[in-house]
Amino acid sequence: MELIHSVEKMQTRAHELKRAGKSIALVPTMGAFHEGHLSLMREGRKSADVLLVSLFVNPAQFGQDEDFERYPRTLEHDRQLAKEIGVDIIFAPHDEDMYPSGYKTYVTVESMSRNLCGISRPTHFRGVTTIVLKLLNIAQPDVAFFGWKDAQQFLILKKMVEDLNLPVKMAGLPIVREPDGLAMSSRNRYLNPEERKDALSLYKALQVVESLIEKGEDNCETLKNKMKKIITGEPTARIDYIEIVSMTTLEPITRIEKGNTLIALAVYTGATRLIDNIRV
Amino acid sequence: MELIHSVEKMQTRAHELKRAGKSIALVPTMGAFHEGHLSLMREGRKSADVLLVSLFVNPAQFGQDEDFERYPRTLEHDRQLAKEIGVDIIFAPHDEDMYPSGYKTYVTVESMSRNLCGISRPTHFRGVTTIVLKLLNIAQPDVAFFGWKDAQQFLILKKMVEDLNLPVKMAGLPIVREPDGLAMSSRNRYLNPEERKDALSLYKALQVVESLIEKGEDNCETLKNKMKKIITGEPTARIDYIEIVSMTTLEPITRIEKGNTLIALAVYTGATRLIDNIRV
Repeated sequence: MELIHSVEKMQTRAHELKRAGKSIALVPTMGAFHEGHLSLMREGRKSADVLLVSLFVNPAQFGQDEDFERYPRTLEHDRQLAKEIGVDIIFAPHDEDMYPSGYKTYVTVESMSRNLCGISRPTHFRGVTTIVLKLLNIAQPDVAFFGWKDAQQFLILKKMVEDLNLPVKMAGLPIVREPDGLAMSSRNRYLNPEERKDALSLYKALQVVESLIEKGEDNCETLKNKMKKIITGEPTARIDYIEIVSMTTLEPITRIEKGNTLIALAVYTGATRLIDNIRV
Repeated sequence: MELIHSVEKMQTRAHELKRAGKSIALVPTMGAFHEGHLSLMREGRKSADVLLVSLFVNPAQFGQDEDFERYPRTLEHDRQLAKEIGVDIIFAPHDEDMYPSGYKTYVTVESMSRNLCGISRPTHFRGVTTIVLKLLNIAQPDVAFFGWKDAQQFLILKKMVEDLNLPVKMAGLPIVREPDGLAMSSRNRYLNPEERKDALSLYKALQVVESLIEKGEDNCETLKNKMKKIITGEPTARIDYIEIVSMTTLEPITRIEKGNTLIALAVYTGATRLIDNIRV
């Protein structure tokens, strides 16, 4: 397994691989691998000649008061896991190589970046789209893998790729959960035992509304109130948002549209912000 | 010479050419060809296996009160000129194929897009960077050609390509002028005889300050005042801006920095806005 730090080297290597007719799968990550990341890599391994995993804690997607500094960085552990899966190249650039002094260019997917997580994290998606666009240009993949855990992120990135005519296939894979249902996240390690218990309420709330929808309930206000009640019943939990939106526009809807509905929530348990979602 | 209208067909064709090991030169234009455009094509012809000229009057770079509707569209004439030069492919997409309903993604080169032409045209450069990024993704050129006539545009696009790690070489070619010195522009055809005469004042002003600088004058305020005086002497001319800026940041400077200075101006002659510049 190769470890590449330099942007220029990575770009040259990707160019060589493409010239040699190799297909490339990219899994963009911020490291601190859990089973969610590994599921993306396993699928990537099957889908292309060369499996490239990028590992970069992207400063541009963190707000000023967010956890950029303390975000877990576990390169040695990540390398070991990636090696076991058969990753060919780890690309772990340095901040100053990705955003050199005088850096000025940002890409924005308008309107879709403003709601849901965009309300409490107003510059987050601009940071995500910009770094992913850079990674696509550097690594020139045929296919890139993302988790549905970050549903808004994935839908925004797919829209960016479509709008900008980028020649890459965007693949979204299901959320991977702990045995009790908590969505895997690199931030779960921040939780103390009580918060970890309360964190389960996100999945519980989603399961309850899923079963209500199966029974015929389609009023979004009713469904959101049900979720609100479940979350607020937990001592350490504080709702950031609970939303039911169209998957095309990410705008709120009033009635469930089967096949095009995203039910998403963000909840603070203690100081840790967790997100989860289901598609209906 | 091929004429391609469909984005999908163009992208497939470019992909085939790249796979066959051919290099591609792109000349992005809005049509209404003059000698400036032709000089870019002649240079493009020499620099790659395949010469591709895009021809698209980009709505996203026109303001609401600007001349999008009446911008000259002369496809048949342009095709004839391109054919004579040996262009291989003309890519002339339709508006709804480039910006389909629900289009949302824009790229911005911050700060460099705000001054000079960005003051009177606040969304212009966002439109330019977005369309050029799309064209680069569709046509996958090895090299792209631009004229120094639009100096701010070229410097912003070079910055975008560098910041986003785009694998393309950006080439800038000198301004082509009419025998009397007027910079060639598709908008010169809007000028009536009196305005055409007054339009010469842009070049005259630039020549005067160039010779003052050669004689040792390096105070930007003095030089700008000299230019102002020349322009305001013409009956139909009205100054939009006269600026002396750093080529790296496009920020105003107070003393000429040899090798890194752009002297640029925009002037209305009647209703037509003209631009010109020199580098020192």
